[in-house]
Amino acid sequence: MTDLVVRNAVILTADPAGTVIEGGIAVENGRITALGQVPDRAQEVLDAQGGLVMPGLVNTHCHAADCLFRGLVENLPLEPWLQTVWKAEGAILDADTCRLGARLGYAELLLSGCTSVMDMFWHPESSAAAGAELGLRVSTGGLFFDFPGMDGKTADDRPRDAEAFFEAHPRTDRLLPGTFPHGAYTVGPENLKLAKAMADARGALFSVHCAETAVEQATVRDSYGTSVVRHMDALGILDPRTVLAHCVHCDDEELDILARTGAVVAHNPVSNLKLASGFARIPEMLERGVHVTLGTDGAISGNDIDMWQALRLAATLHKAASGRADAVTTRQALEMATINGAKALGIGGLAGSLEVGKAADFQVLDVSRPHAVPMFDPMTHAVYSASRSDVVHVFVDGEWRVRERELVVFDMRETLDEVRALVPAIKASIA
Amino acid sequence: MTDLVVRNAVILTADPAGTVIEGGIAVENGRITALGQVPDRAQEVLDAQGGLVMPGLVNTHCHAADCLFRGLVENLPLEPWLQTVWKAEGAILDADTCRLGARLGYAELLLSGCTSVMDMFWHPESSAAAGAELGLRVSTGGLFFDFPGMDGKTADDRPRDAEAFFEAHPRTDRLLPGTFPHGAYTVGPENLKLAKAMADARGALFSVHCAETAVEQATVRDSYGTSVVRHMDALGILDPRTVLAHCVHCDDEELDILARTGAVVAHNPVSNLKLASGFARIPEMLERGVHVTLGTDGAISGNDIDMWQALRLAATLHKAASGRADAVTTRQALEMATINGAKALGIGGLAGSLEVGKAADFQVLDVSRPHAVPMFDPMTHAVYSASRSDVVHVFVDGEWRVRERELVVFDMRETLDEVRALVPAIKASIA
Repeated sequence: MTDLVVRNAVILTADPAGTVIEGGIAVENGRITALGQVPDRAQEVLDAQGGLVMPGLVNTHCHAADCLFRGLVENLPLEPWLQTVWKAEGAILDADTCRLGARLGYAELLLSGCTSVMDMFWHPESSAAAGAELGLRVSTGGLFFDFPGMDGKTADDRPRDAEAFFEAHPRTDRLLPGTFPHGAYTVGPENLKLAKAMADARGALFSVHCAETAVEQATVRDSYGTSVVRHMDALGILDPRTVLAHCVHCDDEELDILARTGAVVAHNPVSNLKLASGFARIPEMLERGVHVTLGTDGAISGNDIDMWQALRLAATLHKAASGRADAVTTRQALEMATINGAKALGIGGLAGSLEVGKAADFQVLDVSRPHAVPMFDPMTHAVYSASRSDVVHVFVDGEWRVRERELVVFDMRETLDEVRALVPAIKASIA
Repeated sequence: MTDLVVRNAVILTADPAGTVIEGGIAVENGRITALGQVPDRAQEVLDAQGGLVMPGLVNTHCHAADCLFRGLVENLPLEPWLQTVWKAEGAILDADTCRLGARLGYAELLLSGCTSVMDMFWHPESSAAAGAELGLRVSTGGLFFDFPGMDGKTADDRPRDAEAFFEAHPRTDRLLPGTFPHGAYTVGPENLKLAKAMADARGALFSVHCAETAVEQATVRDSYGTSVVRHMDALGILDPRTVLAHCVHCDDEELDILARTGAVVAHNPVSNLKLASGFARIPEMLERGVHVTLGTDGAISGNDIDMWQALRLAATLHKAASGRADAVTTRQALEMATINGAKALGIGGLAGSLEVGKAADFQVLDVSRPHAVPMFDPMTHAVYSASRSDVVHVFVDGEWRVRERELVVFDMRETLDEVRALVPAIKASIA
């Protein structure tokens, strides 16, 4: 018998044709077995009450455990902001607090309909553990950082730790290991190449901050005599398994390099605004065929990790920045938040769209509230009107994760209390 | 006995000192009688459960009944967008549908914690009626438009209608009448002056679109040989009772004029992004002491009317646009959305902040969800993390408007069904 049937839904598939289907979705063994016409009976039947069913969102750049420091540092640009953030991280973070923070972040992601996340952070084994507890898809792995890190490790520890992470965490559909050098201004050329080689040896993912600010561009130019993207290209670390977070400050030729190499851009508009980083040249990237995905970045530059905010900004910000009201279309924005992200994480065949045979990673949105009425086009609604408050149910592999707006896999009360108990120490750390 | 006590709250007063108080809020006859220490007993006692109490938001630019057309027209800049919008408005709108649309919009506003709105629309008597039904503060009044209007009226009808509106709607604390010429490119100098004179004769409000797009600036320059703000200044219609919606395209001297005259700017960042209008020069306005407030604009350029989106964008967008992470501070953004708006509507002594003696227009926000944990600073949380989904209770004049996330003054089911029934006709109107 079918495991799960959701009926009475409007299904925004985000498939290559942008199909919208009225009807139901059927799930067996975690996979979608039917869309539209579905069996009458199943182990579990959910009435979507006319709500919108759409893919779980895919977040390609996040530092989930930084949710511990949500709103701690305000009104500073990236560089001095980072100095303060690192001070707090250094004082507070260990494997346990990283796990606590990752739980906090992943709960927020699931509650807002995000089912897959690429998470760069200290103690990645804690992120992996929290991901297993909460049941979303997580890509994480060994961090590279040439200076002494906020986790008490030195540059010499990094390759060994990254190797150990790979050994302890074989790739599954839920855990997508990779290597995560911080950036070209904090990791030298040899270590960037090493991190990429370690990932390549396993066909694994690789992600790095890239061209986030003008200061970063200037710093890298001072050190290496060239721009960030050119520098990375010369190191041979750009290809479709490389996810570059930000790419705000790129010249035309750098955009051409991104297109030529197939490197993925993780666009983080919420963070780029708050840290005054600037506007990534997303329309020019799309014109060149650059693979653009969406991320939330961390909650210190947020101050939440809400893919709906990122989605709406991705669809609107570049219209104003370019002066062209069709600069990013509704469809392009939705794809950034769904299938493009899934492809970037190497799970394009599994997630990111609702198609028969793919995993049942989806969310059910309430569309009965005034802000959803009338609805002329479900895709337009999803991109320009929907928000985290509309997410009622969330499934990963056909399993309940959020039910009636509450997390069902993990009781967060204790976690939230533990986080609140850290507040005095966090405040003291930057006093 | 005290009518209402809300206890166990963190109160973000938005008063001139930015005071935050832990404790309660007491209300008698619609006015705040105590903050912090409050009586134990009252007719009604509400436990805020540690939630955030803050002023109801004030929306200084809205076309609420345009919620009927939410998401109808996409990916177009203002001018061709407006042609399509006007086509739909012309086919669908009459006094009844305007009332229906205003109800829809006001319900959305109240549910998202907005308690006062300046609403420019056809059939303003319908807006006033819907405002009375839903119980929020509404500023509206006679529209001026030189061409035949979407309400079937001609330019000759306008002054008579505006006069009739004033006669039928004396100013109360809930209904703030004014005159509402559409813009300098749709209303000639004589009618702009007439509309302002009619408002001035009653000490009433006056609002007009101003410098929203580069095309508008060029059109006005072609007609009058000068820029929009200079043109309005020369007509003598700029003063502190004038609310100018948008002011996106202003040169330095125009910003100086705004500061000198005390004219109010209603900043609408959500709309300005989606219609590709550009970025208003808010930091430069603030430096000059221009009176900046916030608006949602209509839901066709939204596609919702969510003051939380406007608030977060007001606080973040200009950081990136200016490259300065402190370009608009948390406090400045909050003031735009609260007390600055109230002052602009002439109700600064009544609303926009929580102080003893002022009206009890406030909302209670849930801060127990993961995206609100931890909270280092309630003001930062309100500006950068909170959203409409957090609004649990809303009061106007100490009366319940939203209780446990549901509107309590008006059963919206019939209204929503009537709106949905209009969809085929709306689609046909622009086919």
